[in-house]
Amino acid sequence: MARETERQGETAGGAADSGGTVEARRRRVTVIGSGNWGSVAAKIIATNAAALPSYHDEVKMWVYEETLPTGDKLTSYINRTNENVKYLPGIKLGPNVVADPDLEHAVKDADLLVFVTPHQFVESICRRLVGKIRRDAEALSLIKGMEVKKDGPCMISNLISEMLGINCCVLMGANIANEIAVEKFCEATVGHKGDKEMAQRWVQLFSTPYFLVSAVQDVEGVELCGTLKNVVAIAAGLADGLEMGNNTKAAIMRIGLREMRAFSKLMFSTVKDTTFFESCGVADLITTCLGGRNRRVAEAFAKCGGKRSFDELEAELLRGQKLQGVSTAREVYEVLGHRGWQELFPLFTTVHEICVGRLPPSAIVEYSEHTPNFALVEGSAQLY
Amino acid sequence: MARETERQGETAGGAADSGGTVEARRRRVTVIGSGNWGSVAAKIIATNAAALPSYHDEVKMWVYEETLPTGDKLTSYINRTNENVKYLPGIKLGPNVVADPDLEHAVKDADLLVFVTPHQFVESICRRLVGKIRRDAEALSLIKGMEVKKDGPCMISNLISEMLGINCCVLMGANIANEIAVEKFCEATVGHKGDKEMAQRWVQLFSTPYFLVSAVQDVEGVELCGTLKNVVAIAAGLADGLEMGNNTKAAIMRIGLREMRAFSKLMFSTVKDTTFFESCGVADLITTCLGGRNRRVAEAFAKCGGKRSFDELEAELLRGQKLQGVSTAREVYEVLGHRGWQELFPLFTTVHEICVGRLPPSAIVEYSEHTPNFALVEGSAQLY
Repeated sequence: MARETERQGETAGGAADSGGTVEARRRRVTVIGSGNWGSVAAKIIATNAAALPSYHDEVKMWVYEETLPTGDKLTSYINRTNENVKYLPGIKLGPNVVADPDLEHAVKDADLLVFVTPHQFVESICRRLVGKIRRDAEALSLIKGMEVKKDGPCMISNLISEMLGINCCVLMGANIANEIAVEKFCEATVGHKGDKEMAQRWVQLFSTPYFLVSAVQDVEGVELCGTLKNVVAIAAGLADGLEMGNNTKAAIMRIGLREMRAFSKLMFSTVKDTTFFESCGVADLITTCLGGRNRRVAEAFAKCGGKRSFDELEAELLRGQKLQGVSTAREVYEVLGHRGWQELFPLFTTVHEICVGRLPPSAIVEYSEHTPNFALVEGSAQLY
Repeated sequence: MARETERQGETAGGAADSGGTVEARRRRVTVIGSGNWGSVAAKIIATNAAALPSYHDEVKMWVYEETLPTGDKLTSYINRTNENVKYLPGIKLGPNVVADPDLEHAVKDADLLVFVTPHQFVESICRRLVGKIRRDAEALSLIKGMEVKKDGPCMISNLISEMLGINCCVLMGANIANEIAVEKFCEATVGHKGDKEMAQRWVQLFSTPYFLVSAVQDVEGVELCGTLKNVVAIAAGLADGLEMGNNTKAAIMRIGLREMRAFSKLMFSTVKDTTFFESCGVADLITTCLGGRNRRVAEAFAKCGGKRSFDELEAELLRGQKLQGVSTAREVYEVLGHRGWQELFPLFTTVHEICVGRLPPSAIVEYSEHTPNFALVEGSAQLY
């Protein structure tokens, strides 16, 4: 609860940190990305920046330039109407949001950089930013869905931090952009590495009466939640497709949350159990397993008895949007196989084997039969 | 995971415990109660008792005798057809379930007593059992929804244990009786006070390939989950009635889980965080907030803008079944008021104030406005 309080109002000691260079003037924020969630983030930040004395009113938003069917450039349209007609139609972003098609120009003076692009573009964007940003800039990643390589997860916060030589926090949670855009109540979690003052600055920049943000010292735990939940959503969708009822679905979600926790703790010993009680954990999992595209495609997959592939159903149901759960399940499966941990993760393992057709969809509720003796795996007891 | 393993097969050391009196012959089980969940419990136990060499095949089920419209006695009907036509129609309980209308006779030789009656009858049943049961009997309570008195919760496991002078574990979880009756996959949690061998015996007696049971040393945490979740379900139902969407609902469920955890830890310092990750915690909460009567009536309450009372809607929608969330919310509110803790529990407090008409249903998403400074309350930080 201390964290919930610190949300309210400016911290008094602002001028004491980071050598006075930033403190001497108002902080500038740039949002890198202008999709659905990026636009909502810009809207929230813009409201707060305008109200907080330590921030410059203007919030820049880097927009990947597109030409609209009307012939308008997307950036001109946004700057003229304060609306991102393509990715967040009908919502005013605030007059102090300035769309900028030039990445380098957009970040040049920024003290705070908010990354909210599709995850596959982060690396190339960072490459373009090297040497072009303030050396004392701070970053925040809103990007879910990093890759999990054989040696372990490739954290996006880490990628940003290493490529640009700056600190990077993350913000994750049960955040359906369109619902937050119309100011429906929800929450989010900021994960940080120990710099509590910076974390509180991010909390302050995002908090509104309808959007409660709190901070935890666990970047990896928070960021892994945002990725691993998609695997659980596949499992929940399969249960929906099999018409198993709420009881079974709740059991599957619980087992999924347990495996998210265990996997994260195996990957990073610093990950905390309590992170999974935060918005980024249990709440995001619930939202994703109730709605969400992973759930939806998996439901369709189970309904047709696994006879049509995920690729085919994805193309049909999502019209170009991509499904992350299937690829994350495969990546996680490879890590587990590489380390000999598959038996510890019956749900994660089963999801992948169902996705590739090695097991039928109904296997999602048959752990007890094909799951071997957990107690034989040394050191596994403290994970759950 | 050790616990999941111990589920499988008999423990080898059975003959060594409790002085040989019970071990010399096969253990006998009596189920006290024959409602919807009681009948399903009897069915599961009967299957396992028949298969396990250390159990007597026959499982007694005490039935509160009723005369059916056909003129049949309920017990005779059950014993003739193996079906509880009134409370679990269409499901065979197993030929080794014997319905007994005589409470004292039903419990006389039992080594294991499973309590599964409505919570308001436990005290009078226990009064009738004093001196009538085996002194080395062991009890298990499946009863959710104990009262919370001003001084704290009145645990049903404790009531049974104190009145009868025997040990009492609990079994709770995301357990919709009708779904388990048709063998849909789910889980449950056994809470015990330290006697791990006894806990494992309960785990063994209930475990099936579709019903995974695990044990935790935290009776109070497990039992409180089963009661407090109903308050959260009211909040979730209000969010549904206000058509707030999955995102808001997930946030409310998360805040509710946080308050369940904090309240339980304030009541009993032995309560463990990890208990809330078990089936009794997060899974039961999810099931209850997706389906369930508390959710349903609260949804109707919010839909009519709070203009009709909970009592009225309960009578109309539930036809005689009772709503526990509203009375639990009031009881919890009194405890919080008594101890000066209301500010620590904005969701619990708000639910009660909405139920009694002091706040409108929409207040369920307005914590940040009417919630005062948590940090001012000493010693509250470790609760969340």
